[in-house]
Amino acid sequence: MSDNLKIKVIPLGGLEEIGMNMTAFEYNDSIVVVDCGLSFPSDDMLGIDCVIPDITFLRENADKIKGFVITHGHEDHIGALPYVLKEIKAPLYATKLTMGIIEGKLQEHELLKAVKRKVIKFGQSIHLGDFRIEFIRTNHSIADAAALAIHTPEGIIVHTGDFKVDYTPVFGDAINLARFSELGKKGVLALLCDSTNALRPGFTPSERMVGETFDHIFSEHKKSRIIIATFASNVDRVQQIINTACKYKRKVIVEGRSMVNIISVAREMEYLKIPENTLINIEEMDNYTDDQLVLITTGSQGESMAALSRMAASIHRKVHIKPNDTIVFSSTPIPGNEKAVTKVINELYQLGAEVIFQDTHVSGHACQEEIKLMYALLKPKYAIPVHGEYQHLMAHGRIAESMGIPKENIFLLESGDVLALNEESADVEGKVPAGSVLVDGLGVGDVGNIVLRDRQNLAENGIIIVVLTLEKYSNQILAGPDIVTRGFVYVRESENLIDNAKEVVTNALLDCLESKNADWGKIKMVIKDSLGEYLWKSMKRSPMILPIIMEVQ
Amino acid sequence: MSDNLKIKVIPLGGLEEIGMNMTAFEYNDSIVVVDCGLSFPSDDMLGIDCVIPDITFLRENADKIKGFVITHGHEDHIGALPYVLKEIKAPLYATKLTMGIIEGKLQEHELLKAVKRKVIKFGQSIHLGDFRIEFIRTNHSIADAAALAIHTPEGIIVHTGDFKVDYTPVFGDAINLARFSELGKKGVLALLCDSTNALRPGFTPSERMVGETFDHIFSEHKKSRIIIATFASNVDRVQQIINTACKYKRKVIVEGRSMVNIISVAREMEYLKIPENTLINIEEMDNYTDDQLVLITTGSQGESMAALSRMAASIHRKVHIKPNDTIVFSSTPIPGNEKAVTKVINELYQLGAEVIFQDTHVSGHACQEEIKLMYALLKPKYAIPVHGEYQHLMAHGRIAESMGIPKENIFLLESGDVLALNEESADVEGKVPAGSVLVDGLGVGDVGNIVLRDRQNLAENGIIIVVLTLEKYSNQILAGPDIVTRGFVYVRESENLIDNAKEVVTNALLDCLESKNADWGKIKMVIKDSLGEYLWKSMKRSPMILPIIMEVQ
Repeated sequence: MSDNLKIKVIPLGGLEEIGMNMTAFEYNDSIVVVDCGLSFPSDDMLGIDCVIPDITFLRENADKIKGFVITHGHEDHIGALPYVLKEIKAPLYATKLTMGIIEGKLQEHELLKAVKRKVIKFGQSIHLGDFRIEFIRTNHSIADAAALAIHTPEGIIVHTGDFKVDYTPVFGDAINLARFSELGKKGVLALLCDSTNALRPGFTPSERMVGETFDHIFSEHKKSRIIIATFASNVDRVQQIINTACKYKRKVIVEGRSMVNIISVAREMEYLKIPENTLINIEEMDNYTDDQLVLITTGSQGESMAALSRMAASIHRKVHIKPNDTIVFSSTPIPGNEKAVTKVINELYQLGAEVIFQDTHVSGHACQEEIKLMYALLKPKYAIPVHGEYQHLMAHGRIAESMGIPKENIFLLESGDVLALNEESADVEGKVPAGSVLVDGLGVGDVGNIVLRDRQNLAENGIIIVVLTLEKYSNQILAGPDIVTRGFVYVRESENLIDNAKEVVTNALLDCLESKNADWGKIKMVIKDSLGEYLWKSMKRSPMILPIIMEVQ
Repeated sequence: MSDNLKIKVIPLGGLEEIGMNMTAFEYNDSIVVVDCGLSFPSDDMLGIDCVIPDITFLRENADKIKGFVITHGHEDHIGALPYVLKEIKAPLYATKLTMGIIEGKLQEHELLKAVKRKVIKFGQSIHLGDFRIEFIRTNHSIADAAALAIHTPEGIIVHTGDFKVDYTPVFGDAINLARFSELGKKGVLALLCDSTNALRPGFTPSERMVGETFDHIFSEHKKSRIIIATFASNVDRVQQIINTACKYKRKVIVEGRSMVNIISVAREMEYLKIPENTLINIEEMDNYTDDQLVLITTGSQGESMAALSRMAASIHRKVHIKPNDTIVFSSTPIPGNEKAVTKVINELYQLGAEVIFQDTHVSGHACQEEIKLMYALLKPKYAIPVHGEYQHLMAHGRIAESMGIPKENIFLLESGDVLALNEESADVEGKVPAGSVLVDGLGVGDVGNIVLRDRQNLAENGIIIVVLTLEKYSNQILAGPDIVTRGFVYVRESENLIDNAKEVVTNALLDCLESKNADWGKIKMVIKDSLGEYLWKSMKRSPMILPIIMEVQ
């Protein structure tokens, strides 16, 4: 049997670590790419702005790529598009709000004209090479989230995107379970399903539950100024805050750049309904009393530059926290942010404010019973857990097994794995390049491991630069050695140390220069060794030592 | 009324942030210092090894200090002793195991001879100036933990240290509730009580509960090799692992330097009972089958250099994780470590091991009902919550209020606050210097905010050094400008950029040198400005730019 008769499923990111979701589907000469997300840098990626998937595979197969199909408008599904679309020329397909958010990004990167785009409605299909892609409505923490039914010559593959089951969503309809059921009846070859909450038993509550909590908070804090921090992208959450504000006759102020941006897109596209005279500008705040105000703000993750963090640290230019403030965290900390969030909470307490963070958030991802529901409806032959750390993929695998999928039909893939499948069989048949590319400013991929290692070293130990000028041929010292340090010690209080270091280096240098075979390599080594030894002995530190030699004729 | 008739309670650390516990008690010419701990550096303290309290106040009052009294042997209560005792000559008092652990530290710092020490038994009192200090047995996650009754001419002040109520401790007796009750009858002026778990309702379970879980795990994993990670200092936990290992006839290997150290101290002092032929050396591991082995290891917090993390990353020299391994995390992540722990768990899963982290840990700190018990027994006039972040101190304050302490008698102090109190009144009467001193290698306090800011900048953006040699008087360029970078870009792939940068700097320099009034300050500014602008425009990055000028006659 020829390989051409198999569909290849190739995750290019989004496994092992959360974020950076991107999966290629290949059949014959057609490739369709689902999602194109970025990750935020981990702690050891110093100075990195974001992380995007390695697109070597896409680059090498650019002529086959029929399009990018996007499930929803979150950064971990759309964030890498501006970088990838600079290289890969292929059209873009997404639902209305998703496209609206993407267009904002493309505009920033001046790509709006270069990229062909088409807005797709739920239920609609598009033909891309050998594939037909159908968009199916789901629920998530942003409106217009879609699952995809990828109709292929070898059968139907369903990709859920990020999803939950919300029977009473704040905006739009509930997830189209009937369509999933129909697909299940037709027969589904493979299911790629969200694993984020696979460790959590039960069912994720409806977004409306948070609305009830808001009502409760507003009715119990009638005299306070209320400040609510949440994710900018959670348009439904914002809608509920606005609804509650209107009910309690409060004006709404939106603070934080990303919050302002996304609200204006969502409002323009009518995914957000704001009654007239509800929103006011932050400059008008002083015209109202505390009980007439709600602030919606960024910073629910303790991000140091976000609006709420600046308020908590008393460095926000316009909002000063006071004992009559009630601050609501409408979010849970993303792993890694716990300490930053706690810091903000402590600071708010110290300013006398009340802080509420219970029952003020629900997840946007399916828990175990919802994942089971997907398997019950779709009855796929193969299960391919996606979206999650390895522990989540594993937990998802166990759920699939409990739903009757044979163990050998469950595939916990790594990024780059090529899973070739059809009705007869499925196997990992190789590996394509996949991994992370670091973005720092406008530089994509020019910061690699060596640079990061240097940054780590600089961060922990600082740098000592030893500079001297030599006369050409004679190797006479014309100037220096001078010692300049950064990030090492506070020089004004350590003059002695620097003087001693200079003496150590000078002595070692003079010794070295006396011998005739003193080339630059050797001189530099002598500087590094003598200074390194001296600093370790006297201080137990090893800063980066950088000798620079200049030559004058 | 003269101030001399009041006792001054001066927390010098351990409030606002967890760790670095130290409190001074002053009356007339007597000062007693309770605990002397260190903190671990937060993420923004780049390259810092640990953080110790500012001892300006102790230094200025050195002649009054009658002694250091230590409640228990954890780093956040003893870790700063070697640094502080180098300057402050005063005797040291602690229970047996606590002193044993301290002596290990003093030996490392060659202070063993210089410091007078006395081991105190529970129930025993020591006279220190105007104070009499009584040691009372409590329970905690390390044996020999003590609360202190500080008998003063103005009344009794009780300091709980870190404590929990364990009616069935693994080692030694239960907390001496009878003595607290007697003190309550006599009348207690003030209570300084542990706030760590003040947000948690209920009662902390006995350490023995973990023993039952271990039994369960061992009986269900009879064929696996079992690896248990826990805190090195939790001697009782180690005892329970050893007990369970003996019951199931397994040999025990201890791995990780701090674990080996503390076990040898505890064993020597008979706080740890290990039957003969139970411990084996890691080199002997190959002589045993998986079902005959237990490894106790460090790394339960995902610390990158610890033994378990190295096993998970497959870089441990002796232990290679395999599918027949069961790994138990006998700990919960300390805030800030969640992501590191998750990373290790994922890596272990990927190696095929089973990972268990439920019901394998209990806290060493009192929950709400235990805190209430303390108030019920001691009936203090004043409540001074200690040990915890501000949110914990606040929660503790609410508990004190619920126990009948009037709000005005509850003091949420900040480090450095001087609380003067006696039967008549209590007030914060000023502030002494208090705060953090950073330790980097042998340097104590020589890394301050400027150095940290430089390290931050270096970490995020790297450094560009521009070096040139000028002829004295004429300001002719004799060599350079040369550009050297570290942590900026991978130079071999960015030669163009560096060449362009050089050209930009050279042009700006030549312009500047043409004008006669070009002093070094101006030259450096021109270099910084021209290069900074160029890099921001072309790359949206702002590395640290460091111009170095050498002069040759």
